[in-house]
Amino acid sequence: MSVVTADFVVSLDGCISGRAIGPDAPFGLGADPLAGWLHGLASWRARQGMEGGTHNRDSAIIEQWFRETGASILGRRMFDLGEPFWGDHPPFRTPVFVVTHRPRPDIVAGDTSIHFIDGLDVALDRAQGVAGPRSIDVGGGADLFQQALAAGAIDELQLHIVPYVVGDGLRLFDRLPPIGSEWTVADSEQGEGALHVRYRRR
Amino acid sequence: MSVVTADFVVSLDGCISGRAIGPDAPFGLGADPLAGWLHGLASWRARQGMEGGTHNRDSAIIEQWFRETGASILGRRMFDLGEPFWGDHPPFRTPVFVVTHRPRPDIVAGDTSIHFIDGLDVALDRAQGVAGPRSIDVGGGADLFQQALAAGAIDELQLHIVPYVVGDGLRLFDRLPPIGSEWTVADSEQGEGALHVRYRRR
Repeated sequence: MSVVTADFVVSLDGCISGRAIGPDAPFGLGADPLAGWLHGLASWRARQGMEGGTHNRDSAIIEQWFRETGASILGRRMFDLGEPFWGDHPPFRTPVFVVTHRPRPDIVAGDTSIHFIDGLDVALDRAQGVAGPRSIDVGGGADLFQQALAAGAIDELQLHIVPYVVGDGLRLFDRLPPIGSEWTVADSEQGEGALHVRYRRR
Repeated sequence: MSVVTADFVVSLDGCISGRAIGPDAPFGLGADPLAGWLHGLASWRARQGMEGGTHNRDSAIIEQWFRETGASILGRRMFDLGEPFWGDHPPFRTPVFVVTHRPRPDIVAGDTSIHFIDGLDVALDRAQGVAGPRSIDVGGGADLFQQALAAGAIDELQLHIVPYVVGDGLRLFDRLPPIGSEWTVADSEQGEGALHVRYRRR
């Protein structure tokens, strides 16, 4: 069985993006510092097919996450927001399962294949079939993450905590039932752009 | 001018206590692991007038926070919830300013004096007058912290992040306006009970 991970950049106040998210502002308003450090990293740029960028511990940690991921699961809204930006070159380079009630034909683009699946459980099953020794990453958005967390489906959670207070934004943890689950800190490291903390569920 | 600090134990999902807070459950339901590690520390016990407890880095970090605090500011609701437990021995050992629209006479109990003040600004002014070289700690609850944060009144924020997911609880950061403030990580250290991160506002 592949480990199921989730990996998010969050603000000090737990936001993963700003307010007023939509096609014109897929990352929302007021949250640019969350992504600024990430988009300058060599590992991030390489995954988008770009050269250059910063080589540091932040970049190595993000590169490890990419390398260890064998399949990704996304919510439909996140996919719809990302698709216009990814164009013909979605950056996943693994199979991606988009959870949606509105099926559409698979997309195959370079190393990435995108499959539209009705239900998180089914998506997780499908991902288990293709991830091999690598992990399955629940990539967001927040709704899908919360659904997976509440179901006990997340084994490891990596947060990259940026010392910025968004205020009014989209929270990673929100509208959750009483979960009361214990985790351990597998690793924590202060990078240049973020504090990287890897949690493992007990 | 004294530095204004805030120091909170938070869950992985940003809660400082559980759900259904009230006189019978001042810490709420479903959040016991947030306080369990803290209440066993030697420094915490000493402040409550108790002997024994664990001496470790967690204890030293909490002891430093107590030692550096020269005055505290609390919201009225938090004071009301704590008062029955503190009895004649409130654990602050500094002047405390309770922000409230309903004044009542000062309380003097041992090393602690408690003053009821109408307005956060006035409370901060009063605290500046007595804290000396030590800091002024905005001790909560969440409402008062959010008010102080949104007003730009917090200079340093220390979070003790416990690897526990409360789910439905009281959030430290909530109902905030778009703040967009930058902080730096002054220090971070993984303890036995919590990840201790000290932020300083830029």
